[in-house]
Amino acid sequence: MTSIQPGGSLLTRRRRLLGPSLSLSYREPLHIVRGEGAYLYDADGRQYLDCVNNVAHVGHAHPRVVEAGIAQMRLLNTNTRYLHETVVAYAERLTALLPGHLEVAYFTNSGSEANELALRLARTATGRPDVATVDVAYHGNTQRLVEISPYKFNGPGGAGRRDDVQVVPLPDPYRGRHRGAGAGVAEAYLSESRAVLDERAAAGHAAGAVIAEAIPSVAGQIVPPPGWLAGLFDAGRAHGAVPIADEVQVGFGRVGADMWAFGAQGARPDIVTMGKPIGNGHPLGAVVTTRAIADAFANGMEYFNTFGGNPVSAAIGLAVLGVIADEGLQEHARVTGARLLGGLRELQADHVSIGDVRGVGLFVGFELVRDRATRDPHAALASELVNRAAARGVLLSTDGPDHNVIKIKPPMVFSGGDADRLVETVDAVLTELRSSQEQAGTALGDSRGGRIDSMS
Amino acid sequence: MTSIQPGGSLLTRRRRLLGPSLSLSYREPLHIVRGEGAYLYDADGRQYLDCVNNVAHVGHAHPRVVEAGIAQMRLLNTNTRYLHETVVAYAERLTALLPGHLEVAYFTNSGSEANELALRLARTATGRPDVATVDVAYHGNTQRLVEISPYKFNGPGGAGRRDDVQVVPLPDPYRGRHRGAGAGVAEAYLSESRAVLDERAAAGHAAGAVIAEAIPSVAGQIVPPPGWLAGLFDAGRAHGAVPIADEVQVGFGRVGADMWAFGAQGARPDIVTMGKPIGNGHPLGAVVTTRAIADAFANGMEYFNTFGGNPVSAAIGLAVLGVIADEGLQEHARVTGARLLGGLRELQADHVSIGDVRGVGLFVGFELVRDRATRDPHAALASELVNRAAARGVLLSTDGPDHNVIKIKPPMVFSGGDADRLVETVDAVLTELRSSQEQAGTALGDSRGGRIDSMS
Repeated sequence: MTSIQPGGSLLTRRRRLLGPSLSLSYREPLHIVRGEGAYLYDADGRQYLDCVNNVAHVGHAHPRVVEAGIAQMRLLNTNTRYLHETVVAYAERLTALLPGHLEVAYFTNSGSEANELALRLARTATGRPDVATVDVAYHGNTQRLVEISPYKFNGPGGAGRRDDVQVVPLPDPYRGRHRGAGAGVAEAYLSESRAVLDERAAAGHAAGAVIAEAIPSVAGQIVPPPGWLAGLFDAGRAHGAVPIADEVQVGFGRVGADMWAFGAQGARPDIVTMGKPIGNGHPLGAVVTTRAIADAFANGMEYFNTFGGNPVSAAIGLAVLGVIADEGLQEHARVTGARLLGGLRELQADHVSIGDVRGVGLFVGFELVRDRATRDPHAALASELVNRAAARGVLLSTDGPDHNVIKIKPPMVFSGGDADRLVETVDAVLTELRSSQEQAGTALGDSRGGRIDSMS
Repeated sequence: MTSIQPGGSLLTRRRRLLGPSLSLSYREPLHIVRGEGAYLYDADGRQYLDCVNNVAHVGHAHPRVVEAGIAQMRLLNTNTRYLHETVVAYAERLTALLPGHLEVAYFTNSGSEANELALRLARTATGRPDVATVDVAYHGNTQRLVEISPYKFNGPGGAGRRDDVQVVPLPDPYRGRHRGAGAGVAEAYLSESRAVLDERAAAGHAAGAVIAEAIPSVAGQIVPPPGWLAGLFDAGRAHGAVPIADEVQVGFGRVGADMWAFGAQGARPDIVTMGKPIGNGHPLGAVVTTRAIADAFANGMEYFNTFGGNPVSAAIGLAVLGVIADEGLQEHARVTGARLLGGLRELQADHVSIGDVRGVGLFVGFELVRDRATRDPHAALASELVNRAAARGVLLSTDGPDHNVIKIKPPMVFSGGDADRLVETVDAVLTELRSSQEQAGTALGDSRGGRIDSMS
C-alpha cells in the first residue's frame, strides 16, 4: 500500500502535502497504478473490479479515447479564440443527442464549472438570483454551488440555507414522507414543492432557476416516482424559472433507456449540464441551452474559459461519444443494469439487512438497514461491507445522508459477469458478517471505518 | 480561413453551435491547426509568431510535456481517492518552489476553480465573506469571481459592485491618480487602499481576504511601484484578511527575476493561486496555502474535485516544472524580456503614438495614445496594429480598460530573434499606418475591428 520514499511513505507524504479536506477511500487506502476497462490494478499487481468510478465511463484508459487525446496533444492545444474544426464537430455531435431546442453549447473543465455557468445563464436570462434546489442535492464545489447544495450547507461545516435558496423535498419513495410507486406519490412531492416555490414568489423572491438531477445521486441513488422531474420543472416554469437538468452523474447513456436521465423522466430542461463521464477522466464539462438563453447571456460581458473547448478536450469528448455509440454502451447499460438489479433483488430475499434495491441502468444502489420494518439505517454495516468487498477485490462506495446506501455506478463496459461477481461478493460479505455477529452475539457498532465518500 | 463542410463554413457552424458570449481573435479569424514552440500554423500552413498565449508556457506541444501526458493517459487517469505517487511528487516539487510557510496544495482544473477555492479557504478561515480587490482586476468566470472582478462587474453587462466587495485603487504609474516611479507613489496608493479597508472594517465589514495580481494583467500589464503588493497585503492583514496572490497570469518564472510575481514584489501571501501556464494548456490549476488555513478549512465539509489532481494532470504539471528548470526558462525570460523592452523603448523614440512601454520579464505591454501629453488612449490604433500585425504573421492582443494596451506574453521559449521580429513588425505597421494617415490627412477613427480580448 505504501512506497518507501525520502520523506516517508506515500501516505505520510500525501497527508503532509495535500489539503486535509480531501479523503481517501477505504480503511486500507489503495495505491492504484493502472486501469483497463472496468478494472483497476494496485502497485502489487492486484486486480480490483471497479463498481464506482462513473467518470471512467467507457472504461479505464480506453484506447480510442487515449489515442484521440494523444494525436491532438501532439498537434495543438490552445484556446477557442481561433477557429478549430474539432470543437465545432464536437458541439454538433453533442447537441444532436439532445432535444432540438437545446442547441447552443459551452465547454468548461468540470461539472462544477458547468453548473456555475448554468446558474449564471439562468440568472442573466431572468434577472433573478434565487435558485430552487432539491433537498440533499450536491451540485459542485464553488461558493455558489455549495450554497445551493443542501448536502453541503446542511452537512458538517455547512452554513445553512441562504435566503436566496429554495429547497424542495427529495422525492424518496423508500424513506421520504411519501412512499411507494403509487400514482399519487409524485404529485404529493410536487404539491409540497409548488408550495415552497409559490410562497417565495409571493414574497417577491420568485426563483430564477430550478436545478435537479433526474436521479438524485448523493442523496442515495434515489429513483423518483414517474413524472416527478417534469412536474418540478413545470412548477418552476410557472414562476419563470429556468429548468436545469444536472446530468453530471447520470448522463451519457448510463440510465440505459435514454441517453439522458431527464429524458427517461420525460422532462424538458432549458439547460443541461454535463461533467464527470463526458471526458472519461479528462477535465471536461459542458452546458447546452436554448438560443434564447444564450442570446440573453450575450449581454456584453464575455464568458471566456481559458481551457474550455480546447482541441484536446474536444477530441477526447468526441471520441467518448464515438465509443458510446459504436460499442452500444447505452443498450449494454440497460441490459447489464437489469441483470445487476435482478441479482441484488434476489439477495434481498436472503439478507434482511438489504432494505431496498433500486436503480436505472448502471446507476444502482441498495440500502442497508438494522430493521426492515423501521428502516433504521445501518451505516456501520455499509462501511464494513465496502471495506471487506475491497479486500476481496470489489470496489464499492457508500452514500446517502445516512451513509447506509451502497452506490454502484461502474464504467459502462462493466459486463454481465462483472455484475454477477459484484452480487456474489456482496452475498459472501453479508453472510460472513452475519455469521461473525451471530457468533459474537453482537451487532456491528456505529463506528465507521475509512471514510467512503460519494462524489467520485 | 474556412473549411467547406456540410452545414456551412467552419465560422458559420461555430456561430450556430457555440455560445455567442465567446469571441474570436482578429478581424479575419485564424484557423489554427498546429503549434510548435512559439509558433502557430494555420490550415494553409502559414506560420504565426505567437506573442500572446502565456498558457502554452514552455512552448506549444512541448514534446516532454506531451509525452508525460501520453504515458500517464495510457496507464491510468482517476481521482484522488486512491494513493498515487505522481500527485504527491508534484505537490512536493510545486511547494518547494514557494516560501516555506506555503506548504499545503490543492489541485483544480482551472485558474477560476483555484481562485474560487482560495476565496472559500479565506472565508472559512476568517468567517468573513468580504473580499478586497484591486480596481479593474479580473479573477475568473464563476459567479463569485465575477462579483470580485471590477473588470467584469463595472464592464458591459455588469451588475456593479456588491456591498461585500471592497475595491482598492489600481496602482497605475502611467495613467492613475499617482504617477511615476517615485518613492511616494506606492504609499499614495496604499494610503487610499487603507482608507477603503478601514472604512469597511469600521462599519463591521472587515475583509476576510485581499486578492491581487502582483502585475495587474487585464488592467493593461500594469507594473506597480515597488512595495505596493507587500503594503496592500499588510493593510489587509491589519484587519485579519488573508492575503491571496493570484499568479494565474504571471507565475512560473515569467517575470524572470523570480519564479513568482509576488516574490519579485517582496510580498508574502498566505494563499497563492495558479492556472493558465501550469499545465501548458492542459486544464489544471492549483492553490497552495498555509497549514493553519488548510486546517481551518477541514471543518468537516469535504472539498472534493473530481478531476483535480488526477495522475494525468499531475504528470503534465510535473513535466512543465521540469522543463522550466532544465531549459532555464526563468532566466531566459529575464534576458529576452529585457531585450524586448529595450527594443520597444527604442521604438518609442520614433513613434509618438507609443505613450508608455512597461513590463517585467516576458510580461510586457505598451500603450497607444493620440497625444503623449494628454495620454488620450488610442483604441482604434491598437486594434488596427493588432490586425495588421496578424496579417504579417505576428500575433498580438489588446487589453486594458481603454483597449489601447498591446499585451505581450508569449510562450517562454520565445527567442531573442522572436523579440526582434516583434519589434520590427510593430515598427513597420505603425510606420505604414502613419504614412497612410498622413496621405489621407485623417486620423484613425474609433470604430474597432474584430474584438481582441485579453484573458487568453
